Amino acid sequence: MNFDLKTEFTLSKDISKLEKEIKTFFSDFEKTVLKGKKVNFQNIKIKGETFTLNIVSKSTFRPHNALLQIKNKISQEFGKKHHIGVREIKIENYTIVFDLEKKPLKDFKIPFAKIEIKNKTAKLILEQVDEEFLRGNYIDRIIKRVHEKVENQYYEGKGEFWKSIWESKSKKPVWNKDPTEEMVKKDWLKQGPTKGKWFFRPQAAAILKTMEKIAIEEVLKPLGFQEIIESNVVPFEVWLKTGHMEGMPGEFYYVCEPNTRDPDKWEKFVDLTKITREIPISELKKNLSDPKGGLCYAQCPVIYWSLKGKTISEKSLPVLIYDNTAISGRYESGGRHGIERVDEFHRIEPVYIGTREQLLGLREKLLERYKHVFNNIFDLEWRMAWVTPWYMQQAGKIGDKGTQDTGTIDFEAYMPYRGDRKKSEWLEFQNLSILGDKYIKAFNIKAQKSSLWSGCSGIGLERWATAFLAQKGINPDKWPEGFKKYLDKLPKGIEFL
Amino acid sequence: MNFDLKTEFTLSKDISKLEKEIKTFFSDFEKTVLKGKKVNFQNIKIKGETFTLNIVSKSTFRPHNALLQIKNKISQEFGKKHHIGVREIKIENYTIVFDLEKKPLKDFKIPFAKIEIKNKTAKLILEQVDEEFLRGNYIDRIIKRVHEKVENQYYEGKGEFWKSIWESKSKKPVWNKDPTEEMVKKDWLKQGPTKGKWFFRPQAAAILKTMEKIAIEEVLKPLGFQEIIESNVVPFEVWLKTGHMEGMPGEFYYVCEPNTRDPDKWEKFVDLTKITREIPISELKKNLSDPKGGLCYAQCPVIYWSLKGKTISEKSLPVLIYDNTAISGRYESGGRHGIERVDEFHRIEPVYIGTREQLLGLREKLLERYKHVFNNIFDLEWRMAWVTPWYMQQAGKIGDKGTQDTGTIDFEAYMPYRGDRKKSEWLEFQNLSILGDKYIKAFNIKAQKSSLWSGCSGIGLERWATAFLAQKGINPDKWPEGFKKYLDKLPKGIEFL
Repeated sequence: MNFDLKTEFTLSKDISKLEKEIKTFFSDFEKTVLKGKKVNFQNIKIKGETFTLNIVSKSTFRPHNALLQIKNKISQEFGKKHHIGVREIKIENYTIVFDLEKKPLKDFKIPFAKIEIKNKTAKLILEQVDEEFLRGNYIDRIIKRVHEKVENQYYEGKGEFWKSIWESKSKKPVWNKDPTEEMVKKDWLKQGPTKGKWFFRPQAAAILKTMEKIAIEEVLKPLGFQEIIESNVVPFEVWLKTGHMEGMPGEFYYVCEPNTRDPDKWEKFVDLTKITREIPISELKKNLSDPKGGLCYAQCPVIYWSLKGKTISEKSLPVLIYDNTAISGRYESGGRHGIERVDEFHRIEPVYIGTREQLLGLREKLLERYKHVFNNIFDLEWRMAWVTPWYMQQAGKIGDKGTQDTGTIDFEAYMPYRGDRKKSEWLEFQNLSILGDKYIKAFNIKAQKSSLWSGCSGIGLERWATAFLAQKGINPDKWPEGFKKYLDKLPKGIEFL
Repeated sequence: MNFDLKTEFTLSKDISKLEKEIKTFFSDFEKTVLKGKKVNFQNIKIKGETFTLNIVSKSTFRPHNALLQIKNKISQEFGKKHHIGVREIKIENYTIVFDLEKKPLKDFKIPFAKIEIKNKTAKLILEQVDEEFLRGNYIDRIIKRVHEKVENQYYEGKGEFWKSIWESKSKKPVWNKDPTEEMVKKDWLKQGPTKGKWFFRPQAAAILKTMEKIAIEEVLKPLGFQEIIESNVVPFEVWLKTGHMEGMPGEFYYVCEPNTRDPDKWEKFVDLTKITREIPISELKKNLSDPKGGLCYAQCPVIYWSLKGKTISEKSLPVLIYDNTAISGRYESGGRHGIERVDEFHRIEPVYIGTREQLLGLREKLLERYKHVFNNIFDLEWRMAWVTPWYMQQAGKIGDKGTQDTGTIDFEAYMPYRGDRKKSEWLEFQNLSILGDKYIKAFNIKAQKSSLWSGCSGIGLERWATAFLAQKGINPDKWPEGFKKYLDKLPKGIEFL
């Protein structure tokens, strides 16, 4: 790496006569503090109350890290001898040259700096940088982000890692229709009131609630999971810690609070609404705060937040908890389909925290319970595969290979309405992850003695329902016996003319 | 009432020579179309291609309603004879004088007009009004809003209507502590992650889920209610129909969608987030749409929406449905307290639609089931009162008196931690409303034959829990036998050091 930082110091008095002393100061600083660091001071120029110089480094030592040290030292030495202090430091220009692992496939930008790339060498040019910028450690993150952007260019377009690990027997489906379409025709389901959301009338609601009951009774309770209830609104700080904020900002539903409840401040809005029968958006926006968070995207971040900074007693390990209340919102610009790909869905999310051994053992037990549900109760044609979901790859925390320890297993079901079982895309209707210590560290969660890992397993009720109905139909008479024990008859619903 | 509208017509040709014909036209119009309506045309002045005139009405006839008619008639008559058309109509000035029922207590403003009030007479002065404004019927709504604002001035500060109708026996409370505070101390509850929201750890979650179970098993199922599942996001159009939009805009949590999912558009946001580890709000706002809706405030509006324009079969009456999924969000700027006054809460909302007789009968049955729960299971000290909630008064649809037919019954529980049972404020922990045909009409819901009414009854789980715990404590050993049948032991929870 190669750094060249041009800085200007403004002092409290004219220093024209101190040229020799100043040059000696820097030459001493080089020989003592920066000894062996391949850092040099160059072009020291003195003019009135200011001097400029370049700090040049040929190693990984960052010149900006020396600046504040220099400031202090000058204040000490010249303060004592000449009653001179440092008023201001400016960075006029900062050039950083470093090698990339790969040659970028296309140009890109980076905030705060100009970037020039030749082959595998990147050159960052920053101008007029302030002290806060340096203190905030932005430089190192800019360099890291440049590496990441190049890496992403190579990664884009590569599919998700996928490796089959188990497959059920082939089963003869009861029908090959799209269950959502059929339920809409029967008035069991209605789309809306906003994009990608659904209204479940009694028959469809009964199916979804049965999925919930089976998940709780057959998977979570037998393994000792305890229910918690979390908020549906997630502040940005939580998503900053989990990496969601930078991973999928285009998929959140953002939430804005009113900035006041004072009726006087809302009076004009109310007047305009009553008079025009339309929403006066610009008047509304005057009364709203900037967004500070969004709707639940997955439930685990808030569960980790709830344990932030806590030390868990050994006898509470493994912590086995689940949320069945927060509703997941994910903005889908396109590709919505039926109740299986939506902007809002209902999910139970078990989270487990314990030692590596505890979690590996738990994974086996969870797999066994899930197999029991999908084989014995749903009688599904389904399979399991090791995958690394894109958001994990995006956050750059997990490699692109499934391993036996950390990683994610996807559960996929054959969807007869999509066509041939070999050629059509199966539906991911369940997953199970062990995530190592990623979130444990992010939220500083500790145990009395043990090192902790964590994981989670999203149970999407709409996905369970779609997988089941796509294979078994919507006529309860044709449902498997195991499922009929939970639901053998649909509610009457509401009849329309 | 008194209207004086000054308008300018611009025609397609010079009409200086047609002065006589034009004056005759208006004199004829007065005598034929406007006969007996106390409307006159005054100050007709012709200049080049334009003429101006005042339309003066001394009755409730609105001059602006004649304008488009005049435009058409002129185009017909002068088009045929002189090949002249109307290019533009401008309203230069419109003065409306009308009487108020009461003298305003203070000045106020109204959009689109200047308002001058002397005693009980209001004068509206509008300038430069366009055609669309007239077509949109804004004028009548402005007049209505002026009346309403004066009415509200008299209403402000008046308490909610309240009339006790039933009271339980006085019961000796188990303790007099604030249950939220005690649960926080025991780590059963944690505030956050955003204002006025809570995280329920296993012990507190078990209590809330027991409330849910009791409501379903003891109240809703025995009466034949069927569950539906609605979306948590409500578009403004639905709240415009229910009146919530103008009733409580300062209490909603507003929702904004991303205006794109395109990663290129989000790249700068991601860069800045990764480099600064803060949320770049102005960059974020570039990528967000204007709000189009908000989080569920109460569940009934979306239930009504789901039946919009439908004709319900007689045999499905009364329709008895409930939502137990959408989470209610209400922005509370102050006055938050414990889990009983919060920004986010969990509520089951049964909605009933049927004939007047069906609903009055249902009300008796619901009251009986609620009494059973609060007396025999919770063993509470509580009372019922006829009330008219402020939002109903605000929307101006229901009077300020409780009646035997439509109206709301509040259920209130004594809160020992607040002090003396006679002097302290009791907690509203349940309500029951019959609303007549207000929402039925707003959403154009019909039955095969019958006229429909509707109503709803909010079951707030946090409120039920607080009422119960405030009187019975948080030690299961001391809970009443009826409740112990549902929950006699709390889950272990998570132990922290």
